[in-house]
Amino acid sequence: MTATIALDDLIAALSDGAVVTDPDIVAGYRQDRALDPDAGTPLAVVRATSTDDVAAAVRWCARNHVAVVPRGAGTGLSGGSSAVDGAIVLTTEKMRHIHVDPVMRTATVQPGLLNAEVKAAVAEHGLWYPPDPSSFEICSIGGNAATNAGGLCCVKYGVTTDYVLGMEVVLADGRVVQLGGPRLKDSAGLSLVKLFVGSEGTLGIITELTLRLLPPQPPACTVVGSFASVHDATEAVLAITNRIRPAMLEFMDSVAINAVEDQLKMGLDRDAGALLVAQSDAPGAAAAEEIAIIVEAFESHRASEVFSTDDPAEGEAFTVARRMAIPAVEKKGTLLLEDVGVPLPSLPALVDGIAAIAENRDVMISVIAHAGDGNTHPLIVVDPDDPDQRARGDVAFGEIMDLAIALGGTITGEHGTGRMKKAWLPNQVGEDVMDISRKVKAALDPDGILNPGAMF
Amino acid sequence: MTATIALDDLIAALSDGAVVTDPDIVAGYRQDRALDPDAGTPLAVVRATSTDDVAAAVRWCARNHVAVVPRGAGTGLSGGSSAVDGAIVLTTEKMRHIHVDPVMRTATVQPGLLNAEVKAAVAEHGLWYPPDPSSFEICSIGGNAATNAGGLCCVKYGVTTDYVLGMEVVLADGRVVQLGGPRLKDSAGLSLVKLFVGSEGTLGIITELTLRLLPPQPPACTVVGSFASVHDATEAVLAITNRIRPAMLEFMDSVAINAVEDQLKMGLDRDAGALLVAQSDAPGAAAAEEIAIIVEAFESHRASEVFSTDDPAEGEAFTVARRMAIPAVEKKGTLLLEDVGVPLPSLPALVDGIAAIAENRDVMISVIAHAGDGNTHPLIVVDPDDPDQRARGDVAFGEIMDLAIALGGTITGEHGTGRMKKAWLPNQVGEDVMDISRKVKAALDPDGILNPGAMF
Repeated sequence: MTATIALDDLIAALSDGAVVTDPDIVAGYRQDRALDPDAGTPLAVVRATSTDDVAAAVRWCARNHVAVVPRGAGTGLSGGSSAVDGAIVLTTEKMRHIHVDPVMRTATVQPGLLNAEVKAAVAEHGLWYPPDPSSFEICSIGGNAATNAGGLCCVKYGVTTDYVLGMEVVLADGRVVQLGGPRLKDSAGLSLVKLFVGSEGTLGIITELTLRLLPPQPPACTVVGSFASVHDATEAVLAITNRIRPAMLEFMDSVAINAVEDQLKMGLDRDAGALLVAQSDAPGAAAAEEIAIIVEAFESHRASEVFSTDDPAEGEAFTVARRMAIPAVEKKGTLLLEDVGVPLPSLPALVDGIAAIAENRDVMISVIAHAGDGNTHPLIVVDPDDPDQRARGDVAFGEIMDLAIALGGTITGEHGTGRMKKAWLPNQVGEDVMDISRKVKAALDPDGILNPGAMF
Repeated sequence: MTATIALDDLIAALSDGAVVTDPDIVAGYRQDRALDPDAGTPLAVVRATSTDDVAAAVRWCARNHVAVVPRGAGTGLSGGSSAVDGAIVLTTEKMRHIHVDPVMRTATVQPGLLNAEVKAAVAEHGLWYPPDPSSFEICSIGGNAATNAGGLCCVKYGVTTDYVLGMEVVLADGRVVQLGGPRLKDSAGLSLVKLFVGSEGTLGIITELTLRLLPPQPPACTVVGSFASVHDATEAVLAITNRIRPAMLEFMDSVAINAVEDQLKMGLDRDAGALLVAQSDAPGAAAAEEIAIIVEAFESHRASEVFSTDDPAEGEAFTVARRMAIPAVEKKGTLLLEDVGVPLPSLPALVDGIAAIAENRDVMISVIAHAGDGNTHPLIVVDPDDPDQRARGDVAFGEIMDLAIALGGTITGEHGTGRMKKAWLPNQVGEDVMDISRKVKAALDPDGILNPGAMF
């Protein structure tokens, strides 16, 4: 990999203006939202406008032994799109076509469309694309597929892979292949489409997705409960998931509650140890039954305040509050954003263990969680001007992953491994799984030009 | 591969009695339900009782360059378990342990348990495992995962892969690995667990599955409609799926209706051209809304009789009738059982085209279908004593797959590619996808000992 390669061939092969070398613009593509301190400086940025652009760029990279770092909206939280020195950063942000088929109930979308834009486009046809990362207004659908992104409603409706029926992919040698397609059932050949979901650009570059859609989500009823302790709240989560499948079941600790209340001034209980926001979207009378079960679980776990509403706007206000937790806590310092998940019965142990790590390492860790599926986002808050605290935060970051692994959990529930978490991946999956993963990677990208350093 | 290898080492390495060489017993393991005429004669059958047995058998095969054909309950319909000359047939039918975790809502099961046994075991904990192949009382959960099996409720609840969170696999060199696990969200590393679902024993042998469970299915309301023509019925299917997601939407043509009526004498309309059986399991008042939409779609497509019931037992009788269609039609001759699927809007064209093939080739083809997801089972009925008719049936078998491919469909919606359909796989997925599939296969099974001849 060298930075002295002439770009003329590349520029000639792509759409006008697709190749960007202006250092100021290129600098903006060095990091994603993980702000990886080890991000390199790319040779150039390719803003692809078509599958042809992507294929031509990858062919050029393959011919010249130049690495290519695929990138969506740049909102990744694990450094999956950190630039590599001398590489091409290939962004799909300008590939924004969508076609909705209401009879088939599918959408065929290019990767650059934002998640929120996909939701809006299919809603025009009375349909619904469920996966809803908290960042849904700024993250791209291509990035969602590359990381197998989750979200708030996934506790009931599943994650990105559950909605990907097919995709077009540019392979490491520039060939374009179609995997799967608009078929609700398909057992023909290997399930490559599911292998590529979550592969973080290490096996190919997704240039189109065929997504399964659902009828619109019924209006949801919302229950909010304040708990004296995080432990009471996490035990209440298990009492709920043991009986029903809520449409949302979100957790915030006291740091997050107060940070959000600072911003929104909506009357959250600043003295609470934890807050749960649950939703039921069961139709008709079934919602009342589910809400009763949630309220009972809250009250039997000593919730001090329980508020329920069937007004969607009122319920949405609490969802907005939960989504605002990360930016609100971020005002307190630089965040190291975790994404560990555990089997549900271990959720209380995980949350208790994180509190112990925070005390041990003397750093602030605020925990928010998609509690209903055991996926937590511990937010380690460090003062950027305090290198010692930052170092202790880094230690805590690793210790939280060690704890999740010890509890039978995962180092990443929905953000992906990227570059920031790959050192912990072998501890989670084991050396034999790493071995076969590397063999699959080598089979599909023998020269290792696709997103080198991510995941592997 | 040679049949003269001494089995002493194998016998010594496995549980007592696991290695079977009695020719009468071995003969019973040569074919699965596809009755592949090209099935070979294995060296021996291994009835594994544990993961250790499977691993030891695979290690022995790897050392001696002997192929291994994995087998569940032997109910496969694509010849995925046809024996290979000189190979070991490894059956997991004796591996039957299950553990249900009601808080996590998962079951950890060994592959030999039947689908119906998994359903029954989890129901004791008030939980539900949705995928329901018509053969659910005789097919194994391991085979379901190996073929990514579907069923009747999949139109609403998805297929096997949507419920597999993790698995234990014995690799081609005998190593045992754990992929995924009891975590509702997990984005760490490559999605190998989803790659292994549907891989038909060509990448490894599944020795344990971790399955996601749902709360019990609400009681379903059933609507049955008789149509003058298959075309009216398939158009009614689209009118329904365009508005709601039914819990079941099954199709039988007049041959199937009459064959079932011969058996069950339940009063089905023998003069009808087609029958649709639809269910809604929406809770409470929502069911009535969905039923009204279904009835309206039936009536506006000229259904002559429309019967609805909210009595689960009455509804189940029609489900049983639909499940009985294959054995009932089988009484008319030898079946060539198809499994093609198309994007839903092409369902009428597929069913019309199959009728044209039947007429052209002068063979009886009865069509039954999981119509709501576009997955059909054309049943080609041939007289086993009429070689010319059998030959015409074989031609029709291929022409139906050609038609499905031309309509943007799949050669197999839920049975798998096996040995009977592999000649058509490249036409569906293309040579480039075959190429990367073979590379993945070679990466995980470089000596090609795992189920050679299946899929590839």
